[in-house]
Amino acid sequence: MTAHPEASSLNAALTAFAVEHLRAAGHAVRVSDLYAMKWKAAVDADDVPDHPADRRLDVLAAHEEATLAGRLTPDVDAEQEKVRWSDAVVLQFPLWWFSVPAILKGWFDRVFTNGFAHGPAVPPPYTEGALGGRRALVSVTIGARESAFSDRGVHGRLADVLHPVQHGLLWFTGMAPLDPFAVYGTVDLPAERFEAAKREYGRRLDGLFADEPVPFRPLTDEYDQDMRLRPGLEEPGTTGLDLHVRPEEHRDSAHPPSSAA
Amino acid sequence: MTAHPEASSLNAALTAFAVEHLRAAGHAVRVSDLYAMKWKAAVDADDVPDHPADRRLDVLAAHEEATLAGRLTPDVDAEQEKVRWSDAVVLQFPLWWFSVPAILKGWFDRVFTNGFAHGPAVPPPYTEGALGGRRALVSVTIGARESAFSDRGVHGRLADVLHPVQHGLLWFTGMAPLDPFAVYGTVDLPAERFEAAKREYGRRLDGLFADEPVPFRPLTDEYDQDMRLRPGLEEPGTTGLDLHVRPEEHRDSAHPPSSAA
Repeated sequence: MTAHPEASSLNAALTAFAVEHLRAAGHAVRVSDLYAMKWKAAVDADDVPDHPADRRLDVLAAHEEATLAGRLTPDVDAEQEKVRWSDAVVLQFPLWWFSVPAILKGWFDRVFTNGFAHGPAVPPPYTEGALGGRRALVSVTIGARESAFSDRGVHGRLADVLHPVQHGLLWFTGMAPLDPFAVYGTVDLPAERFEAAKREYGRRLDGLFADEPVPFRPLTDEYDQDMRLRPGLEEPGTTGLDLHVRPEEHRDSAHPPSSAA
Repeated sequence: MTAHPEASSLNAALTAFAVEHLRAAGHAVRVSDLYAMKWKAAVDADDVPDHPADRRLDVLAAHEEATLAGRLTPDVDAEQEKVRWSDAVVLQFPLWWFSVPAILKGWFDRVFTNGFAHGPAVPPPYTEGALGGRRALVSVTIGARESAFSDRGVHGRLADVLHPVQHGLLWFTGMAPLDPFAVYGTVDLPAERFEAAKREYGRRLDGLFADEPVPFRPLTDEYDQDMRLRPGLEEPGTTGLDLHVRPEEHRDSAHPPSSAA
């Protein structure tokens, strides 16, 4: 999945690199180039063709009904089929206003329907999830410098800024997101930094199925009936979004290496 | 600004309520109903009419050039003019995938251009900002229950989930965002809860120019040249997004009440 309006952009170059790299490693790859596809971004009544014009559009209910009846639009159908087919989803985009471009948000809003990605008809979120068993990798280009997204950086840590995507979309639907891959300082990126970024990205793609995902917490065991984290699971003093990631020392026991399993 | 595809939605009702309430208090109000306007969501080369078809589209540079030359499209011009005209911006939207709907993200991406909302041609971000002097209020409807967005809630605290909007768009551009107003549990919202929500929203609208904004930190005094928070400004043990909000005990000295000023 790639979302940049310019065919010669850094995002397009990283997408082409990833496709080549993964194919050379023997993977089958399917690309959704949202701008090239002229992807419709806004959810509306046209997304649920059977919806009576005189009925109030309740998006959740209408999405569920259309999804379960197999009556979504062909563009959404095709994207759901690609996600179902995949073992891993790679999202390539420029960070605009500290989030994904609108066209990619529209891919989230229109493809990840109630009945497909969440809701009563599929396994519960954050543990199994409708799309469980899939890896996910966010690859993002950022104009600003890396220090501004570091632990004390003014924009917030990149992991926190991307929480709505990493935890809210990917982990929620059952995918296992890896740490994001980011290229910073992309305004007039020197050629040698682009080459270095490609080498690093190649290593990350090599680890797509091997690297440890972000150890987000499962809903069923670690949260109570109000969906609040049970007391005592975190390191003392932990607050905010850090609560929802298992501390490093718990990582090994939660994900035993295969040699020890 | 409101963004819901259904004219009889809760979001539409809250928008109508806010418009009436603010007008009754003597304010002039202008509404941008993005779905009714059929707002174009995706940034592309059509947004910069003078851009040569054979030149690579560098969005930041093209936006800046078109903004400074007064050569944006009429739809974007009109929205920039509304924002410039305003003393306060109220954003009304349903939380979809832990963020704004795509059509509203497209309003951010297309209206808040380099040259208008940020960039070398306008005052620096996070302190003065291009849009300084304006209040901002996010009003959001959420299907999930409130506890899931509380301090230990699985979705993350609402303030953290909305950080890219509150801090990344509003505070970045110089506006003073208030704490968000949220209506939870909106699937089959009982009439008495809707009435209670309107009363509470009315109070929040009454405080639009009087309530204390979120005390986000100014860039110029509190961050170093790498845009990292200077040491020692936070309460010991503070991490993550909390670093970028002044602790409560500093609020009074930073914002003296007018009677003491």
